[in-house]
Amino acid sequence: MKPSIPKGTRDFSPAEVAKRQYIIQKMRTHFEKFGFQPIETPSFENSETLMGKYGEEGDRLIFKILNSGDFLKEYNVFLLEEIKNAIFNLKESIGLKGTFGQLDENYINLFKKNFADRAKNKNSRINSEEFVKDLWDFIYTSFLNKEDKFEEFKKASESKLKDYVMRIFAEFYNNDRKDIGRNVSEKALRYDLTVPFARYVVQHQNEIEFPFKRYQIQPVWRADRPQKGRFREFYQCDADVVGSTSLWQEVELVQLYDSVFTDLGLNGVTIKINNRKILSGIAEVIGASDKLIDFTVALDKLDKIGEDGVKKEMIEKGISETAIEKVQPLFNFTGSITEKIEKLSVLLSESIEGMKGVEELQFICDNVSNLGLSSAILDLDVTLARGLNYYTGAIFEVAPPKAVSMGSIGGGGRYDDLTGIFGLKNMSGVGISFGLDRIYLVIEELGLFPETVTTTSKAIFLNFGQEETKYSMKAITELRKLGAKVELYPDNVKIAKQFQYADKRGIQLAIIVGDDEMKNNQFSVKNLVSGEQQKVSFEELKKMLQ
Amino acid sequence: MKPSIPKGTRDFSPAEVAKRQYIIQKMRTHFEKFGFQPIETPSFENSETLMGKYGEEGDRLIFKILNSGDFLKEYNVFLLEEIKNAIFNLKESIGLKGTFGQLDENYINLFKKNFADRAKNKNSRINSEEFVKDLWDFIYTSFLNKEDKFEEFKKASESKLKDYVMRIFAEFYNNDRKDIGRNVSEKALRYDLTVPFARYVVQHQNEIEFPFKRYQIQPVWRADRPQKGRFREFYQCDADVVGSTSLWQEVELVQLYDSVFTDLGLNGVTIKINNRKILSGIAEVIGASDKLIDFTVALDKLDKIGEDGVKKEMIEKGISETAIEKVQPLFNFTGSITEKIEKLSVLLSESIEGMKGVEELQFICDNVSNLGLSSAILDLDVTLARGLNYYTGAIFEVAPPKAVSMGSIGGGGRYDDLTGIFGLKNMSGVGISFGLDRIYLVIEELGLFPETVTTTSKAIFLNFGQEETKYSMKAITELRKLGAKVELYPDNVKIAKQFQYADKRGIQLAIIVGDDEMKNNQFSVKNLVSGEQQKVSFEELKKMLQ
Repeated sequence: MKPSIPKGTRDFSPAEVAKRQYIIQKMRTHFEKFGFQPIETPSFENSETLMGKYGEEGDRLIFKILNSGDFLKEYNVFLLEEIKNAIFNLKESIGLKGTFGQLDENYINLFKKNFADRAKNKNSRINSEEFVKDLWDFIYTSFLNKEDKFEEFKKASESKLKDYVMRIFAEFYNNDRKDIGRNVSEKALRYDLTVPFARYVVQHQNEIEFPFKRYQIQPVWRADRPQKGRFREFYQCDADVVGSTSLWQEVELVQLYDSVFTDLGLNGVTIKINNRKILSGIAEVIGASDKLIDFTVALDKLDKIGEDGVKKEMIEKGISETAIEKVQPLFNFTGSITEKIEKLSVLLSESIEGMKGVEELQFICDNVSNLGLSSAILDLDVTLARGLNYYTGAIFEVAPPKAVSMGSIGGGGRYDDLTGIFGLKNMSGVGISFGLDRIYLVIEELGLFPETVTTTSKAIFLNFGQEETKYSMKAITELRKLGAKVELYPDNVKIAKQFQYADKRGIQLAIIVGDDEMKNNQFSVKNLVSGEQQKVSFEELKKMLQ
Repeated sequence: MKPSIPKGTRDFSPAEVAKRQYIIQKMRTHFEKFGFQPIETPSFENSETLMGKYGEEGDRLIFKILNSGDFLKEYNVFLLEEIKNAIFNLKESIGLKGTFGQLDENYINLFKKNFADRAKNKNSRINSEEFVKDLWDFIYTSFLNKEDKFEEFKKASESKLKDYVMRIFAEFYNNDRKDIGRNVSEKALRYDLTVPFARYVVQHQNEIEFPFKRYQIQPVWRADRPQKGRFREFYQCDADVVGSTSLWQEVELVQLYDSVFTDLGLNGVTIKINNRKILSGIAEVIGASDKLIDFTVALDKLDKIGEDGVKKEMIEKGISETAIEKVQPLFNFTGSITEKIEKLSVLLSESIEGMKGVEELQFICDNVSNLGLSSAILDLDVTLARGLNYYTGAIFEVAPPKAVSMGSIGGGGRYDDLTGIFGLKNMSGVGISFGLDRIYLVIEELGLFPETVTTTSKAIFLNFGQEETKYSMKAITELRKLGAKVELYPDNVKIAKQFQYADKRGIQLAIIVGDDEMKNNQFSVKNLVSGEQQKVSFEELKKMLQ
């Protein structure tokens, strides 16, 4: 059997871990510069914390954890209790009260013990047919020398007993019966970081100072069908503030995106912004709030299928021509953000909600513009509607630099009632998320990982024998104290093999220690890239490895 | 409902995350200095990768993951097929072939549809009793206007049908039926880092250069009974080398322990060392290899119960007095490591295996001693037998500084056949592990976390209104570019509340911006520890926040 890992999961090699850690460390640094503080939550939560929070589809994609150990024990205890009842009931039902002395507590206990032993040996799993067979064998034995009575007993009870046992099995395993079903699975793997964050805030509300700015970088799990770029285990990197409605948060979150992506060398990302209230305003204007998604989906295709194509699709979806005429400016929605906001304030002038959205957008965009961005571009995109039923204010999405063809590398927004699901009302939250896997791919594609992002040793001391190694280890011990990444080739094997190892590992310098070097307190250093070799003192070696 | 987390799991607050990250980062740095490279493996593995690798007790403690989505779909398809068979069989069995036109494919399909719809609505879970009831309702409807036939049908089939359906349920859920049971759970959460490492090495053997030095810092999960200091989710931090038998690895691992603990300020840890071959030698000398554990356990109590007590216990365990006499030197096993090794080499002179152990110990201890340790103490402990059935050479365990009363904070050893379980033979491995949770507690207890280990902002700009905030945000934006951790209080609320927030968050400096400050291009900085307040220029502020 060739070992493998579950579909949708990944092993990360040293080179990959180094690159991922490089991105994660940058995020941590910027999150903390912006006043966000890290929390971590358990990988699994109580099922009731997660279930029902992500819609029907989401529930289906949550990985549930089987209760272990204890659960099977409870199961056995449950069954054993039932056996006793079953036998008692059978006796009652066929009017054989007290007739069979053998069917007393002692026998039942004996059977329980056998049953428990067998269950233990079989890894605590019980086969229902074997179970019934054993039960019958036991009962039959109880009737030894009273065969006539047994026939009577059997006739009256066989199917009844079988049915009864089966029902116990079925009930036990039936999750709809909450009292029993709960024993099968009570825990589930984290599906995102937002719900655990909301749970954390409510659970620890008395220890938290609000507004609470937290970041969280942890894996999440989804039982999605794996495909290119979609995994069953992946990291989310979220920064959220809860407990303040101040729009300065939105301003800072735009700056945070700019700050992280600039530091990663990803110049020219586009931070798209929209506002749920703008979308509500548009829905009012077109007089069809139920068609809002159809409308934005169609409008988003403007570049691809042109104005006529978009209008055709809208009409097909049941949006009236009059409605479409009213929002005509959206078909020529170009210019600077200021110009776009200007257009919106005309278009939505009749909608109170819409004008509130315009005002919020204006505040955010003006202040971001005044403070300036390092490399990102802020753009208003009225087709941006991610999480339509979730966000209540700002909506964000980040597109990678245009040179790369890839979906969004980040997103977020404001939700007015983050913690309400756990009973803490009126807590507005706003946050953004970074897509680690995609950011990784974009940086890789653009060749932006610095060469220094590696965990490989800077130098390797080759192994020429015990005396040489003792000499080398003295140097290695000192060098490591100074922080140098150096290693020893552990075995005294052919030197060609050692060089090959150093080469394949991508180690830059091979250090050679022979009689000459030991005599003169020196080290021969071979640069494996250039091929140059030189003899140096320990002081010189220290400098080379700094 | 007050939200909670599963027993044995933990939320980590910002202060705790900062401290944990401090330890983890130190480990990473030292691991890499020693030439170890990071890998990461998926949180869950295929069940067959883990099961059977940790003994019977271990298997029980592995968290299994329920298959999601697809598994329930298969279940429904399976049941629907069975319904058809059940009805067909019933008709056959009571000799009603073709009698009831209503019981044809169309009706069955209609029932299937209703059944599938209901299953979907109920989150794909089916209640067996409801199911039987529905089936009966359906069949009854099929007999409308033929009530006499129905009675006949009913009499012949009720218990039979019920039994049949129950059997389907039971069989489906019965894990002993492998073909079906496999659908319930095929994945399990990582139980340790060693088995996934072995799996990784075998799976990626063609990409790896051996010897492979890897480190891995990831959570593991165990369904253990939670208790003080024992969690169901906790981190393991492992450094292992696979593919070399060189004893220089052991030397370096001792140095690595010393290096990490010294850097963490944990001076005076004791690195205990032993060797499986020494233990084998002792077993040979006492002539009872099956009594080896009893022997070491008893010997370990020397400090507590004295020589007589230990000998008494050994005799009770069936070790002969003659045997005990032979190993008399172990009852006065003091002195330097060199002296202890000297004693062992006399004691074990007759045992080839034992003398091999002495030789290995000597090599490791001599070289560690020559190279010197920074703060740790290396000590030989012949009672050290952790993982007796697992390790084949060196055995390590680290005790915290004597000032702290706590169990081991690290351990490890050499195992000759690390990857054999996955089919790659003759790969010797040696490694050590760091106990993150206990190390954390020891550092906390000794007050060794530096004050700088915090993620809290250095300064907070208080919020006096829009104009003041615009002025503040310009400064904040610049300061963050220079790497300073500063934040803005987002809302313009009572200043006392803002001060209280800053205080509770442990932020050192509050920065006040009013008309005066704006006019003069200044900032008032209040030190929340000393209470001092001063007006400074932006240049001065920058210096304060560096």
